[in-house]
Amino acid sequence: MDMQRIAMVVEFDGKLFHGWQRQENASSVQAEVEDALIKIERVEGKLVAAGRTDAGVHAEALLVHADVCRSRWHRSPRAYTQGLNQLLPEGVCVTGVRAVSRDFHARFDCLERRYRYKIWNRSTPSAIHRWRHWWVPRAINLEAMQEATRCLLGRHDFTSFRAAGCQAATAVREVRHLTVQQRGWEITIDIHADAFLYHMVRNIVGSLVQVGTGGWRHEKMVEVLKVKDRSQAAATAPAHGLYFSDAIYPDFTSSELIGKELG
Amino acid sequence: MDMQRIAMVVEFDGKLFHGWQRQENASSVQAEVEDALIKIERVEGKLVAAGRTDAGVHAEALLVHADVCRSRWHRSPRAYTQGLNQLLPEGVCVTGVRAVSRDFHARFDCLERRYRYKIWNRSTPSAIHRWRHWWVPRAINLEAMQEATRCLLGRHDFTSFRAAGCQAATAVREVRHLTVQQRGWEITIDIHADAFLYHMVRNIVGSLVQVGTGGWRHEKMVEVLKVKDRSQAAATAPAHGLYFSDAIYPDFTSSELIGKELG
Repeated sequence: MDMQRIAMVVEFDGKLFHGWQRQENASSVQAEVEDALIKIERVEGKLVAAGRTDAGVHAEALLVHADVCRSRWHRSPRAYTQGLNQLLPEGVCVTGVRAVSRDFHARFDCLERRYRYKIWNRSTPSAIHRWRHWWVPRAINLEAMQEATRCLLGRHDFTSFRAAGCQAATAVREVRHLTVQQRGWEITIDIHADAFLYHMVRNIVGSLVQVGTGGWRHEKMVEVLKVKDRSQAAATAPAHGLYFSDAIYPDFTSSELIGKELG
Repeated sequence: MDMQRIAMVVEFDGKLFHGWQRQENASSVQAEVEDALIKIERVEGKLVAAGRTDAGVHAEALLVHADVCRSRWHRSPRAYTQGLNQLLPEGVCVTGVRAVSRDFHARFDCLERRYRYKIWNRSTPSAIHRWRHWWVPRAINLEAMQEATRCLLGRHDFTSFRAAGCQAATAVREVRHLTVQQRGWEITIDIHADAFLYHMVRNIVGSLVQVGTGGWRHEKMVEVLKVKDRSQAAATAPAHGLYFSDAIYPDFTSSELIGKELG
C-alpha cells in the first residue's frame, strides 16, 4: 500500500489516562489513538511522539507521527481528522494535521520541547479547575521564584532534578526559556529545552515553589543544581499541573498546526 | 442556640451535579452543602442562594446564606470553611465566607446577578476544556454579535428568551451589561442583569451565535425581542458553557469575598 507519513497534534486530559505510552494493564493515550487508527487503516501502525508524558500530565499540543494510506488521506485531510476524532474516547482528540516527508521523525527531528506548569495560588481550592492546577494555599514571593530561575537557564547537568528511573545516557540539557508569571490566582511557569529528563519539569517546579513559599532562599537553587544530587532538590510537583504545550521542528511547531481553518 | 447568619461563596463544576436545587433522585449542590453543614452543626439548616442554576451549569461564585452556631463560627471562620470543604465531595467547595446581619437574604437582597458564557471557536474540539465551553466549529463574525447585543441592553420584556417552564410573574428584566470578547479560541459573553428568567442567558447566547455564524442578520435580534414569542429565538445554548460568575449586594459582591488571605 502507498503510505503517507503525517504529523498529528494530539490534545488530551491527563486525568483520564495513565500517560502517553502503551502499557499492559492501563489505558494510555498512545493505545487509544493507535486503536482508532487501526479502525480507519485496517492495519496496525505504531505512533511515535515528540515526548512521553506521565500519568496525570496533560497535553495541549503533543506532536506524533504516523503512516497512513495515501489515497484515503489525500481525499480530505479534514475528513480524515474528523473521522479519527469520532473514534476517539472522551478526553483525547486530534487538533491539527499535516503531511510530512517519509523520513520525518516526531522524536528525533524535534529541536525543542515546551512545557507549561500551572499553580492555583489561593487560600481556598477551585472546584472547577481542581485537576488543571497544583493548589498551593500559601503566600508566594514571585520575584524570589523569578530570581531562582536564572541559574537554570543554559546548558547544565540536571542530575539534581532527574528522577531515579530516568534512563537517559546523559543528564546534560539546555534550558532555553524559563519564566514565572502571575495572573489573578494562576501562576504559570513556562519552560523550554532541547529535551527533558524524567520528572525534570516537576522537580524544578517543586524546588521553585520551595523558594516562592520561603522554605529556601533563592540562592539555594544554584547550590542544588551544582551538587548533582537528587536528594537535595524539593519534592516533585504533582502531575496534574503539567502540560506538554509545544514541540518545535525545523519547518513548523506543534501548536501552529492546530486547526484554525473554520467554515 | 445562638445563631450567626453567614454568607458563603460556593464554586462548583456543573458537570457533576443536577443543578443547584435539592431534588428527590438526583445529586444537587444544595443537598451536598446542606449535608456537610449538618455534620458540623448537627441540626438541619436550609441554604438560600442568590439564584438557581440548571444541571450542567457551573458556578464561579454563587452566593448562599446559612445560619450557623455563633460560638463555633467565631472561634475561627477560616477553620470553619476548611472543615466544610473537607466534608464536601469533589467538584464543590466554599471559596469565601463572611458574617452578615440576621436579616440578610441571599436572594432578596441581591441587586444584580452576573453570568459568563464561554464558547470554544476552533475547527477541532478541545479534549481538556470539553465540559467548560460550547464548541462552535464555524467562523464567527464577532462584530455582528456585538452589534446584536445592543438592542438587549436596558429594561425589556424578555418573553422571547424565556423557557416554557419559567414561573416568574413578569418577563421584564433589566440587562445592564452585555459584552462579547475573543481571546485566542475562546469567546466570552458577559451578561449582567437585575435578575434572569429561566434559560434567559442560554437563549440569548443561542441567538447571538446565530448572528455570529451568519444564520441571522444582526437586525433580527430586535425583531425577535419585540415579537415576544419564544419560538422566534434560536435554540438554547448548552448548559456546560455557562457560569454563574457574581452576585452584587449593597455591602459586597460574591467574587470579592473569595479568600485571598494566604498564610
